[in-house]
Amino acid sequence: MYLSLEEVLSGIRPVEQAWRVKARKRLDDLAIPHNSLGYLLDLAEQLVAINESMTPSVAKKMVVTMAGDHGVVAEGVSAFPPAVTRQMVNNFVAGGAAINVLAEAAGAGVTVVDMGVAADLGTLVEQKKILSYKVAYGTRNMAKGPAMTRDQAVQGLEAGIEVAGLLVKSGIELLGTGDMGIGNTTPSSAILAVFSGRPPRQVTGRGTGINDSAWDNKVKVIEEAIALNKPDIKDALDVLSKVGGFEIAGIAGLVLGAAYYRIPVVIDGLISSAGALVAKNLVPHAVDYMIAAHQSMEPGHQYMLEELGIKPILDLNLRLGEGTGAALAMPIVETASRVIYKMLTFTDAGVAGPENPGGTAYA
Amino acid sequence: MYLSLEEVLSGIRPVEQAWRVKARKRLDDLAIPHNSLGYLLDLAEQLVAINESMTPSVAKKMVVTMAGDHGVVAEGVSAFPPAVTRQMVNNFVAGGAAINVLAEAAGAGVTVVDMGVAADLGTLVEQKKILSYKVAYGTRNMAKGPAMTRDQAVQGLEAGIEVAGLLVKSGIELLGTGDMGIGNTTPSSAILAVFSGRPPRQVTGRGTGINDSAWDNKVKVIEEAIALNKPDIKDALDVLSKVGGFEIAGIAGLVLGAAYYRIPVVIDGLISSAGALVAKNLVPHAVDYMIAAHQSMEPGHQYMLEELGIKPILDLNLRLGEGTGAALAMPIVETASRVIYKMLTFTDAGVAGPENPGGTAYA
Repeated sequence: MYLSLEEVLSGIRPVEQAWRVKARKRLDDLAIPHNSLGYLLDLAEQLVAINESMTPSVAKKMVVTMAGDHGVVAEGVSAFPPAVTRQMVNNFVAGGAAINVLAEAAGAGVTVVDMGVAADLGTLVEQKKILSYKVAYGTRNMAKGPAMTRDQAVQGLEAGIEVAGLLVKSGIELLGTGDMGIGNTTPSSAILAVFSGRPPRQVTGRGTGINDSAWDNKVKVIEEAIALNKPDIKDALDVLSKVGGFEIAGIAGLVLGAAYYRIPVVIDGLISSAGALVAKNLVPHAVDYMIAAHQSMEPGHQYMLEELGIKPILDLNLRLGEGTGAALAMPIVETASRVIYKMLTFTDAGVAGPENPGGTAYA
Repeated sequence: MYLSLEEVLSGIRPVEQAWRVKARKRLDDLAIPHNSLGYLLDLAEQLVAINESMTPSVAKKMVVTMAGDHGVVAEGVSAFPPAVTRQMVNNFVAGGAAINVLAEAAGAGVTVVDMGVAADLGTLVEQKKILSYKVAYGTRNMAKGPAMTRDQAVQGLEAGIEVAGLLVKSGIELLGTGDMGIGNTTPSSAILAVFSGRPPRQVTGRGTGINDSAWDNKVKVIEEAIALNKPDIKDALDVLSKVGGFEIAGIAGLVLGAAYYRIPVVIDGLISSAGALVAKNLVPHAVDYMIAAHQSMEPGHQYMLEELGIKPILDLNLRLGEGTGAALAMPIVETASRVIYKMLTFTDAGVAGPENPGGTAYA
């Protein structure tokens, strides 16, 4: 309907260094001790380079929470039954879930997308409470074979791109990623293990909270899935299809869409970062448009951020997902945008008041 | 005019453990994996205990930026001339300084208070653009004797308490601290050295950006000021008067006022933490009402937070002051308040929708 994956992959351009330089010049001239607003200045520079404007606006914000189920839960990798994915989608629609509350506090909307929940959510779609790009009723069990076909992976990516396109056309200036899917730390850790070359034992965490023996089993399931499916690290589509998930595909597509439409995207925690990592491995320059919301408590997440080469805004021991970290970080991104277009430079301040004629004393 | 220091010191009560327990009970029942909202949950618990309400509101927010000058600048401890304090007060009033932009982004107001600027700011006071509680035109040079008299220290503290009282009466629910004062990292590091027992060399940083030899001189000035004045660690008023500053006294008073009136106060960086440390050493339970905004780049700040025993929300390489870190952290504090009164618990969620009858699957 919208754009093909091919068109988007070839249409993503890196941000231009010239805009970074122009932004930094103004930031260096702000009437503050040099660099004293730290990471806010880096964010401001990035926003300018993405928007190609010295007044980048990110006021219109949307968190997109992608939901999907996972065949691999048959291996006992999660403490929770898969029915919880569907139940949580209902909670999102009811408005009392964490992502609803955190997004509202951030002045952001929430768009819930069914990418592959193993239940009929048709009623919610008809009521226009969620979007449906359902690829299938959950992935297959990656411990027994590929989680999805290559065509399904492309379908998931194109869905995410389309959601980004719809939102950009509706005026959204800042996207945030989010996820819901019982079992989805398992494919996320598998994707990380493949792309980073790190052993699953090192990058696998406890998700919603499994015990030692369940964790040990989870690690083995990931090891076996990789050994069985032999995902090709040089082919991100192959990795996504063999050890990925539908909501992860949707997130990867959303991130690619943000890069294609040149708007910044705030990446939530482990699962969102897995999607971002797929996007980066499809188009390395997609990272220019990514902002890491936070450092998650999930032990693999630090390696995700290392692979992505992006620095987290927050470190608050979050490990919920849904897009909660993205929502919490959005006001800081918005503040960074204001730093560059609302703060006075030495020059401005020198003009502004008789008390400060030189305007450079605080250089 | 308002309350005496004595009345306030004896009127501050610790928060009640029973409220913490009640809050944690609800937080543990939220429809999320246990503890997966990390530090937000701790903040929510603290807000409940401070407000003694399960629906703590911190929507009405004010950053108070206290300004003062320092006689110790005669020793060459700052890269900037003291006139910049006055110039920056003008910038705050003009609305284009960092604190204006960051507070506006946070939905917070800014109240600028002249605690002891070495210039006549009468016009700004008449125009009601700043409050004046000017104790004197800058402190004395602590390298030559006490920075202020004991009476002046009390006057500064009572001013801060009065500002807190005025703001609370006007409906403010969340205070943030801020500072402006060329040279004020020197008294702040001195206060820290005294209370922590750490050598000035370990806790002294470069402030707005001095070079190696100026830093070495700054350390020696602090060492000498402590050796000369012999501040009594058991007497916080003595420490404040001998090696403090007027804006630091004002901040300490503001923090005490917050504790007295039972509202939370977000502590900005190094200078604000010096004020908070004075407050803690006057009434240990004052820390129950404090929230650390961020971990500053100033090397001493980590020891400040250690002494205070509070954990920073942000770590963004900020080192500006003015209250900028406090402003940036305020939306996160506000979000924490909403987590406890807007999110559904398992019980609520169980009632909410037919799709989730048990409501406990995600426990």
